[in-house]
Amino acid sequence: MSPTSTPMTQAPGRVVLVGAGPGDPELLTVKAYRLLQQADVVLYDNLVGEGIVAIAADARCIDVGKIGGGRRTHQSVIHRLLLKEAQTGQLVVRLKGGDPFVFGRGGEEALFLAAHGVDVEVVPGISSSVAAAAAASIPVTHRGVSTHFSVVTAMGASADGAPLEATWRALASAGGTVVFLMGLRQLSRIVDEVRAAGVPESRPMAVISAATTTQQRVVTGTVATIADRVRDAELPTPATVVLGDVVAVREELEALRATGATPLIPTALVG
Amino acid sequence: MSPTSTPMTQAPGRVVLVGAGPGDPELLTVKAYRLLQQADVVLYDNLVGEGIVAIAADARCIDVGKIGGGRRTHQSVIHRLLLKEAQTGQLVVRLKGGDPFVFGRGGEEALFLAAHGVDVEVVPGISSSVAAAAAASIPVTHRGVSTHFSVVTAMGASADGAPLEATWRALASAGGTVVFLMGLRQLSRIVDEVRAAGVPESRPMAVISAATTTQQRVVTGTVATIADRVRDAELPTPATVVLGDVVAVREELEALRATGATPLIPTALVG
Repeated sequence: MSPTSTPMTQAPGRVVLVGAGPGDPELLTVKAYRLLQQADVVLYDNLVGEGIVAIAADARCIDVGKIGGGRRTHQSVIHRLLLKEAQTGQLVVRLKGGDPFVFGRGGEEALFLAAHGVDVEVVPGISSSVAAAAAASIPVTHRGVSTHFSVVTAMGASADGAPLEATWRALASAGGTVVFLMGLRQLSRIVDEVRAAGVPESRPMAVISAATTTQQRVVTGTVATIADRVRDAELPTPATVVLGDVVAVREELEALRATGATPLIPTALVG
Repeated sequence: MSPTSTPMTQAPGRVVLVGAGPGDPELLTVKAYRLLQQADVVLYDNLVGEGIVAIAADARCIDVGKIGGGRRTHQSVIHRLLLKEAQTGQLVVRLKGGDPFVFGRGGEEALFLAAHGVDVEVVPGISSSVAAAAAASIPVTHRGVSTHFSVVTAMGASADGAPLEATWRALASAGGTVVFLMGLRQLSRIVDEVRAAGVPESRPMAVISAATTTQQRVVTGTVATIADRVRDAELPTPATVVLGDVVAVREELEALRATGATPLIPTALVG
């Protein structure tokens, strides 16, 4: 997938890489909404929320998750299709779930298109890395509890050739909040590595499935209990795994909403 | 600031904690835009982008960054004001720069209001932690370069009483991308700790000032050069500091845009 420059024989075209947010169509940005309405062509993938593609009422919409019949379209096929559509001189929107630059391969697409003389712009979207937790009333940072958060993929390979597990352990040892994207099927492995990093069994964890959609479900527990609880709940993918004391904020909010009673966790923890 | 429950003698009210995004009004969510137009009262702070408060044309808008005359309004004052406004039974929008749950103290406000019987909802916004980098053409993750990113505040105290510097070192050692929010005035300290973590002098860094606004400026360099370059450029706050090989994606995109030439960094780095 080495980008190579080619002579321009047609209009250079314009591609906008647009984040579609975590699922809820109202969590699109105003700019994304406007671009979808203006687009001539929209290329979208599996993680784009229901009802969002329909906003592009006047565009030709191509589901690039389904090209070729396989489980997943090869990135080079998407690159070539983007280039072909851009070279017609029309406004091409490349619509991606979440944010194009957070595990969205937007950087690869931008480099490929720029190498072929196509004007590329990026419109950020709300990433599930923050919004999935928020939709479960979990702040990724909270004064007195966590002053940093890390986001890591639970699938695929690590960038530098090191095992992904080594990264999980390093981030878990650094304290703070750790968000594992696409973490559902890897949950037992994640818990094993979190333990290996020396995190206490009592550290809270949460798994949020189909965040911000009408199908959203949340399971909470601890390092000790989360894997069993998620298995019992039969949560569907996609799901986001959150590790950290910030999960207790959700528990407290839920308790307050239910009873109006005084907080369940020490006020020292909530600032 | 211990939340305590009080008897409800008035309408319970409703507060929505709304993320205003990184600056550009078009990066508001559709939901945030709608809520601003519906709001009776809007409480906003310093980091909300220009032109965004004006969307709430029919609301009473209160700049809570300016109450009391000090540099910064105490959080307990904001809590009491939110409660008072909510108890009138109107729709209160609490508008925060970025995302309410990413260093926005949204968790504290949600807990306080819930403890007083007020209905609280959170609407995520685009966080500068991702969007500032994106606005500088830097993807926080990039295949073959970084499969994780961490976001940490460069101001204030660490949650667990450990020095903030220890967290910076731990995150820098974990490889991947590290985003330091509010990092401009702390840049020399950040660079010192990054070095102490064993990060090579050649690791790229970037500082993005006033991201996504018309005043946006970007300075890039390395661990060795960034502090001097930023000093020479006299960048204004607020600014976001990015550490990681992903900064090279920006350099390559800029070069391609300028020349249409083949990539400057090895294709192994860009997948």
